Amino acid sequence: MALEHVWIAGEWRPADAISSFHADNPATGQAHALEFPVSDWPDLDAALTAAGEAAHQLRQVSGDQIGRFLEGYAAAIEASADPLCELATSETALPVAPRLKNIELPRTVTQLRQAAAAAREGSWQHCVLDTKLNIRSHYAAIGPVLVLGPNNFPFAFNGVSGGDMAAAVAAGNPVIAKAHPLHPATTQALAQLAANALGDASLPAATVQMLYHLTPEDGLRLVADRRLGAVAFTGSRGAGLRIKAAAEAAGIPAYLEMSSLNPVVFLPGALRERGEQLSTELADSCLAASGQFCTSPNLILALSGKTTEAFIAQLAATLSQRPPTPLLSRAGLASLEAGVRALRHAGATLICGGEPAGGEGYRYRNTLLRTDVATFLANAEALQREAFGNAALVVTAREFPQLVELVRHLEGNLTGSIYSSASGEDDEAYAAIEPELRARVGRLLNDKMPTGVALSPAMNHGGPYPSTGHPLFTSVGIPASMLRFAALRCYDNVRPERLPAALRDKAPSAQLWRSIDGAWVRG
Amino acid sequence: MALEHVWIAGEWRPADAISSFHADNPATGQAHALEFPVSDWPDLDAALTAAGEAAHQLRQVSGDQIGRFLEGYAAAIEASADPLCELATSETALPVAPRLKNIELPRTVTQLRQAAAAAREGSWQHCVLDTKLNIRSHYAAIGPVLVLGPNNFPFAFNGVSGGDMAAAVAAGNPVIAKAHPLHPATTQALAQLAANALGDASLPAATVQMLYHLTPEDGLRLVADRRLGAVAFTGSRGAGLRIKAAAEAAGIPAYLEMSSLNPVVFLPGALRERGEQLSTELADSCLAASGQFCTSPNLILALSGKTTEAFIAQLAATLSQRPPTPLLSRAGLASLEAGVRALRHAGATLICGGEPAGGEGYRYRNTLLRTDVATFLANAEALQREAFGNAALVVTAREFPQLVELVRHLEGNLTGSIYSSASGEDDEAYAAIEPELRARVGRLLNDKMPTGVALSPAMNHGGPYPSTGHPLFTSVGIPASMLRFAALRCYDNVRPERLPAALRDKAPSAQLWRSIDGAWVRG
Repeated sequence: MALEHVWIAGEWRPADAISSFHADNPATGQAHALEFPVSDWPDLDAALTAAGEAAHQLRQVSGDQIGRFLEGYAAAIEASADPLCELATSETALPVAPRLKNIELPRTVTQLRQAAAAAREGSWQHCVLDTKLNIRSHYAAIGPVLVLGPNNFPFAFNGVSGGDMAAAVAAGNPVIAKAHPLHPATTQALAQLAANALGDASLPAATVQMLYHLTPEDGLRLVADRRLGAVAFTGSRGAGLRIKAAAEAAGIPAYLEMSSLNPVVFLPGALRERGEQLSTELADSCLAASGQFCTSPNLILALSGKTTEAFIAQLAATLSQRPPTPLLSRAGLASLEAGVRALRHAGATLICGGEPAGGEGYRYRNTLLRTDVATFLANAEALQREAFGNAALVVTAREFPQLVELVRHLEGNLTGSIYSSASGEDDEAYAAIEPELRARVGRLLNDKMPTGVALSPAMNHGGPYPSTGHPLFTSVGIPASMLRFAALRCYDNVRPERLPAALRDKAPSAQLWRSIDGAWVRG
Repeated sequence: MALEHVWIAGEWRPADAISSFHADNPATGQAHALEFPVSDWPDLDAALTAAGEAAHQLRQVSGDQIGRFLEGYAAAIEASADPLCELATSETALPVAPRLKNIELPRTVTQLRQAAAAAREGSWQHCVLDTKLNIRSHYAAIGPVLVLGPNNFPFAFNGVSGGDMAAAVAAGNPVIAKAHPLHPATTQALAQLAANALGDASLPAATVQMLYHLTPEDGLRLVADRRLGAVAFTGSRGAGLRIKAAAEAAGIPAYLEMSSLNPVVFLPGALRERGEQLSTELADSCLAASGQFCTSPNLILALSGKTTEAFIAQLAATLSQRPPTPLLSRAGLASLEAGVRALRHAGATLICGGEPAGGEGYRYRNTLLRTDVATFLANAEALQREAFGNAALVVTAREFPQLVELVRHLEGNLTGSIYSSASGEDDEAYAAIEPELRARVGRLLNDKMPTGVALSPAMNHGGPYPSTGHPLFTSVGIPASMLRFAALRCYDNVRPERLPAALRDKAPSAQLWRSIDGAWVRG
């Protein structure tokens, strides 16, 4: 069977394949027909060389031209929405509507357009001019970026079309995208649209390249190759830590989004006030995308008592009533099963679910587990194992100080939410728990579930280790997410005509914000 | 003999000592009388615990109050300038005047005052407000910072008084400072001034702590302790890479300034135009502090030819005429000897120097070596070994493309300088070499030696690996240097009264710059 071609150095070419694979339809378990290559090292080597050349060429390309590419790509994705959604649903079992067509695809297109606007405006560079000393600096392209996308967003986090790709290109870098092997045909179709848009905008053809799959060994060799500027990865903690070690040993910055339980604390007044409403809100958040969001709430904390018991019972009832939706893969189902088993082994007891569901494809019953603070603290590491999917663990504490102590033992997370009464009765408890939670999460929420990750410049989709590899950086939210793909470049006494346009005395555009001698000035 | 006390949790206490050490006077080789402890783990454990508590307390402390401490400390250092300089010269052999008293001490005081001003103003936090979505974020304290200072700046990079300490405290973090064992008494005296200033400003006593020395094993255990927020290190590449590996494996951000050759390219027109003047300028830069600056020019690149030969001859003559000044230590002398030996072994030939100098203390003859591009490229790694001290290597190329090729083989450096003719005759050469050099250095200079590192917000004292561990960050230049000691903290739907003051709708001061719905606004 002929293998699909990889996209390297501006052409679709036969892979130097070490083996091959195909995707399944997770809703049915049926194999798809197309066979994709697992690339051998010569493919990766060729992509690295082409990316290096593209990086040099991109230095001469304006933010406007990069913006033109990103906008053209966004428009092309919109124009192909129907076939893209058909492909994606067949590879992920995510529903075409509303999820793929009305939420994820528009999000992807918005990200590309926001990146385009940031590239055009240029303020993301954070130009700093010291005119007295004639020293000037800005953030500029770091070099070729390898983007390893996750399984759970075939568009919005796809290596070839997602937020990392958009941010890296907008910062002036070429991207080498590795498709996630669960959705290769979707990635291939997106890559073709990117290829067309690059041509239309006259950008170097190797500004974006795409491979389907690698061996783990080649993957670790690739992330440590000095021709790379940076690596962006979204996925499991195990793979993330291996990539982190290999890349950092070679001096390559690796930006990793690895795992998060997204603890949600329900203070007593909130449950008394609107427990029923909150149990529905929580169930909705837990089951969104079968719990396969980075920000799905997996850990629920509350004080023991009648109100809490009623809340838990209602939550369990809601979870049990809702039909389980397909998980992304057979491996995902196996991993969720293993995760729930491990939590039970570590002392959690099952309230509902806890086994594969019947029906076609890869489904698991909506699952709720519980334990108490003493058990949690005695086995804090095991009980913070992520069971990625439609499962959550409730931990109850008899006394409020135990709840604070529990939060003190949490690992780093992307998000942490606190629900409190509108009346003010929980304010003292909030004040006690907030400093502990704040220190352990990237985004702190009040009275709101963590699963919505708005495309806002103020967003932080990042957090303390091990939720990511570095707590300064976010992978969502332009322009901050672009910083990951930049290096600080200083010009000391450099002659005016040799400076980048953004650092000359006269600003190249009226839109550009710059910090000049201590004050922010536009244009 | 009684050991000097360590400064932990706000008190001078007897160390839990594993062994002891003393400093020498490098100008004479004589041992100093005071004996200092090498701390055992319980000292470090106690410091980590106290720092954790201080970190919590500091969250309630205003930028004004932190500013008051840093300013009080600066004033105390100024008031004690004479005894501090006496101590420092006896431990480092750096001259009291102008170096210590007129340059380094004022620089140290200026850094502390700039940090104080940044803490007061607060704009360093980069507040981003999305008022429509009610999402707000800023950079905030990362947690206890371990500062491991280098041997070559007893004040300005000292763990207890230098730029890293100032930046970390200004960002709201407690600091655990490790004295460099070559200047323990200087560090002790500075720590006492910091202790007094902390008390005067009513800051937590453990906001700054100080230890003299550790075993290498405890050092690696310390940098991997999860109670730390970050590590800052300035020193050798070997130690830096060990710290990097240990810290990063534990998920602790490590900011490292490790090594740099600071290449200086002399284009032909510049040498024809002002070769004699440039040879003096270069000799001055090479010999400043006996070549023991992070930014000393150790690698000089030029095209072969008569003018270049005259330039080299004049440089060698100047270096030979100048009396060698003391190096910082016996170990530093041994390392410089080994470095020059290694360069010769790798193919460099000696023009002048190349052996220890006579006289008291630790001195090495001012040394110049040379090689050609072919030899350099054949042995690029060995010929980029840093020989820290008063030695430099000239590499000549017959053809201009060879020079570009050479630059393409440079490792990451803090700085890179290009000298060119004022007439424009070198402009084509500049355009060809600049992209290659730009990609490999943090700070690009024109017609200027790299040894001056101005205290400017536009400065970059950082660069691509392995000159540092991450190319986004600088260790000099407030406020950018503070980013190293911050995490991104987002507030999503958090109630107004629970927000940090800087993120509320109404700015807490008229000075604070914030990015509100896409525009920078002051106050």
